[in-house]
Amino acid sequence: MKLLDKIQHQGRELTGRALDRHLRLGVTGLSGSGKTAFITSLVQQLTMGDQSANLPFFDVVQSQRYLGGRLAKPPLDVPRFPLEQNLQALQQSPPQWPASTQGWSQLSLTLRYKASTGLRAHLQSHSELALDIIDYPGEWLLDLPLLDMNYKQWCEFSWQLFSKPHRVDVAAHFNQQLAAISLDNATELQLQTLTDSYKALLQQFHQTPGAYLNQPGRLLVPGTLAGAPMLQLFPLLPHQVSADSALAKKLTQHYESYCAHVIKPFYQKHFSGLDRQVILVDCLSALNAGYAAMTELQQALQLILKSFHYGPASLLGRLFSPSIDKVLFAASKADHATPEQHKALTLLLQQFLQQPLKHSQYQAAKTEAMAIAAIRASSSGFVQSDGLPQPCISGTSLEQKAVTFFPGDVPAQLPTAQMFAQHQFAFIPLRPLPWQDCKPLPHVRMDHVLQYLLGDKLR
Amino acid sequence: MKLLDKIQHQGRELTGRALDRHLRLGVTGLSGSGKTAFITSLVQQLTMGDQSANLPFFDVVQSQRYLGGRLAKPPLDVPRFPLEQNLQALQQSPPQWPASTQGWSQLSLTLRYKASTGLRAHLQSHSELALDIIDYPGEWLLDLPLLDMNYKQWCEFSWQLFSKPHRVDVAAHFNQQLAAISLDNATELQLQTLTDSYKALLQQFHQTPGAYLNQPGRLLVPGTLAGAPMLQLFPLLPHQVSADSALAKKLTQHYESYCAHVIKPFYQKHFSGLDRQVILVDCLSALNAGYAAMTELQQALQLILKSFHYGPASLLGRLFSPSIDKVLFAASKADHATPEQHKALTLLLQQFLQQPLKHSQYQAAKTEAMAIAAIRASSSGFVQSDGLPQPCISGTSLEQKAVTFFPGDVPAQLPTAQMFAQHQFAFIPLRPLPWQDCKPLPHVRMDHVLQYLLGDKLR
Repeated sequence: MKLLDKIQHQGRELTGRALDRHLRLGVTGLSGSGKTAFITSLVQQLTMGDQSANLPFFDVVQSQRYLGGRLAKPPLDVPRFPLEQNLQALQQSPPQWPASTQGWSQLSLTLRYKASTGLRAHLQSHSELALDIIDYPGEWLLDLPLLDMNYKQWCEFSWQLFSKPHRVDVAAHFNQQLAAISLDNATELQLQTLTDSYKALLQQFHQTPGAYLNQPGRLLVPGTLAGAPMLQLFPLLPHQVSADSALAKKLTQHYESYCAHVIKPFYQKHFSGLDRQVILVDCLSALNAGYAAMTELQQALQLILKSFHYGPASLLGRLFSPSIDKVLFAASKADHATPEQHKALTLLLQQFLQQPLKHSQYQAAKTEAMAIAAIRASSSGFVQSDGLPQPCISGTSLEQKAVTFFPGDVPAQLPTAQMFAQHQFAFIPLRPLPWQDCKPLPHVRMDHVLQYLLGDKLR
Repeated sequence: MKLLDKIQHQGRELTGRALDRHLRLGVTGLSGSGKTAFITSLVQQLTMGDQSANLPFFDVVQSQRYLGGRLAKPPLDVPRFPLEQNLQALQQSPPQWPASTQGWSQLSLTLRYKASTGLRAHLQSHSELALDIIDYPGEWLLDLPLLDMNYKQWCEFSWQLFSKPHRVDVAAHFNQQLAAISLDNATELQLQTLTDSYKALLQQFHQTPGAYLNQPGRLLVPGTLAGAPMLQLFPLLPHQVSADSALAKKLTQHYESYCAHVIKPFYQKHFSGLDRQVILVDCLSALNAGYAAMTELQQALQLILKSFHYGPASLLGRLFSPSIDKVLFAASKADHATPEQHKALTLLLQQFLQQPLKHSQYQAAKTEAMAIAAIRASSSGFVQSDGLPQPCISGTSLEQKAVTFFPGDVPAQLPTAQMFAQHQFAFIPLRPLPWQDCKPLPHVRMDHVLQYLLGDKLR
């Protein structure tokens, strides 16, 4: 971009934000939570023609004041969200879920509408809202709590986690490797071998159902930092940290450098610019994976929540002044359960977050929880069972079999370990419903999502 | 690094540079030119114990004033050159060449010596020189000339290059794809498909012997910019650029953005800090690959040289003030020819650079050319042939066969196309000689290299 263009671009952006005509919406969630499908659907709903039948609870559409949305010219030096490739995947035969994204990406829209009230309604034929949608891995938010721990505490935290039933076997080999190391005479080569082993362990965890909480979040995607000494970072065994050894000192320095050069810049550069945030949570897969998985998801979400509690005394409050004023927690893939279970799914999500979100007085941002499906993978109906109508869903399994079934009840409370011992949850993953480009994308409650996130800005 | 540490660290560095006690040495070269072996050998020569027998032309060692070198504490947030892994590879049985590095890395040394003259010799028992060695791909230097072209000129330049005999067949498919595109109605998906095709083409060129000049140099290692629109960058066919189409406009914007956001920051961030520079050139492989390859290497080196001509009117002079005062061009792998051919190899390298380097008055930096082998792969000797001693080299081929042979003459001038038609050069690649950690690394002329690069700083 030429300098003049850049100044004009920044000028537009600043003016837009000052006049409340520019909104930066973050979308995140742990790997597999459905970020890509969510953004693809959100953009398709906003740029598609007449959507009044498809978005009944989105006020600006229902009151026929929405004039349409279009993709805006993207900043050329920021990774762009691959919308077109994703829509193409959905139109394959059989339909494919879009490929998941890695790292940061952005898509910009211009939304045009008629203002309903105020000076603007009288003076202008239409108003515009510039919307930037920013996609980033939820794993990056799991790094924030590291700023609140020292290296010793992180080692204790990690090895407590690695002792859980779904992790202990996976971590056994690395445990043995660590136990064999000399704390005062470890060579550079040994240090690198252990680093590589820890990376391999994180990769294995990444494939382990229910192992959500993998720190540091940036070790597996080092980018231009690949090979930097501070990424030689792994948790020593707790008894190894207590001794004041050369290795413990070195790893402590790496830990502090990682906090300073990776975590803080992330929050300052990317997070500080966000106005609103969506966090997607795949509760059903956690139920499928069992008790330890469910507990760990709960723990991971608690840590992620820290990024949205930022009073003056909070960690983020001390770093900078975040400006997120609304957060939406969405239980994704709700269409993998029957509709009458959605209420329970929302309650379950709130249990995961351990609080009735709306009434918390400790939060800087307004929060909400919903059960949604960004892109529908099933249709719902009833079958007759013993003469009574029984709810069911129909779809296509990943193996391309047409299936109609009742996936089971969603518990409205976190099940206990005993309940898991007696009951295996099995919410089966499905392919997206077939879809043609000219039709609205079928969804569950994306109109509620749009109303919550954008409604007040489109009045 | 804590803030105080950082200030102290920067303070040390600034003081060191001001007092001429800190030197930043860049090492570069096109892929396969031997950067990794060069740095590994340089560091091993400087950190090994008594080297007087191994480094006869390195003054500070010969006059017994060199007290030794050790690895300094590395900056934790900069990729570190993997010295230990490289030394380990050399000790394998059979010996392996170290893995080539990708991207930027650094290694820092502290060299201790007795000053021979001046105040320092009288006041201090020893002096220290801090040496940072910085490794980066020569391909990145090939981007500088893009700043001097516009998009249209780059398209013409590229397609002229792609019409050369060793490239034309490889580029045929991409040529057809381009010819079929609509210049005014290309979709985002088509643009991405062409981008992916161009990337695949660059990758194929990268594997093609003698295809050195691949631009833009950063398209294949996008790092955190992956997916940014400006990396949707490929050369349209020359007749396609002349028309004032939507696609040509878009690609022009991407080209300009790439220049502004990738090329300029590279020079400003990395290149501006260098004091001296080594450029490695594998002339023998170019001879093996034939006339077109040799011509292209010459062209690539001409472009790379631009980075070291920076008078006030030059491109770099206008960007910032570089501080490189000495450049060494080294014809690497000289031990793949017999010793009496080294003089011709040096002359050939100077031909590649198209000037007698020492006497050029147009250069900001002092330059020198040498034929070297950073790590020896052969021993040299004589065999009797028709009763006369014939020079030969002995080594182990990549297929692990012991070989003794005369690899042929090195031409002291660039051979003509006709000469290539009559003669096939065949300088056979060899494994490194077996080596044990406690011994000096065998080399050819690394003592001359050290004297040229460091001699005046160790007086």
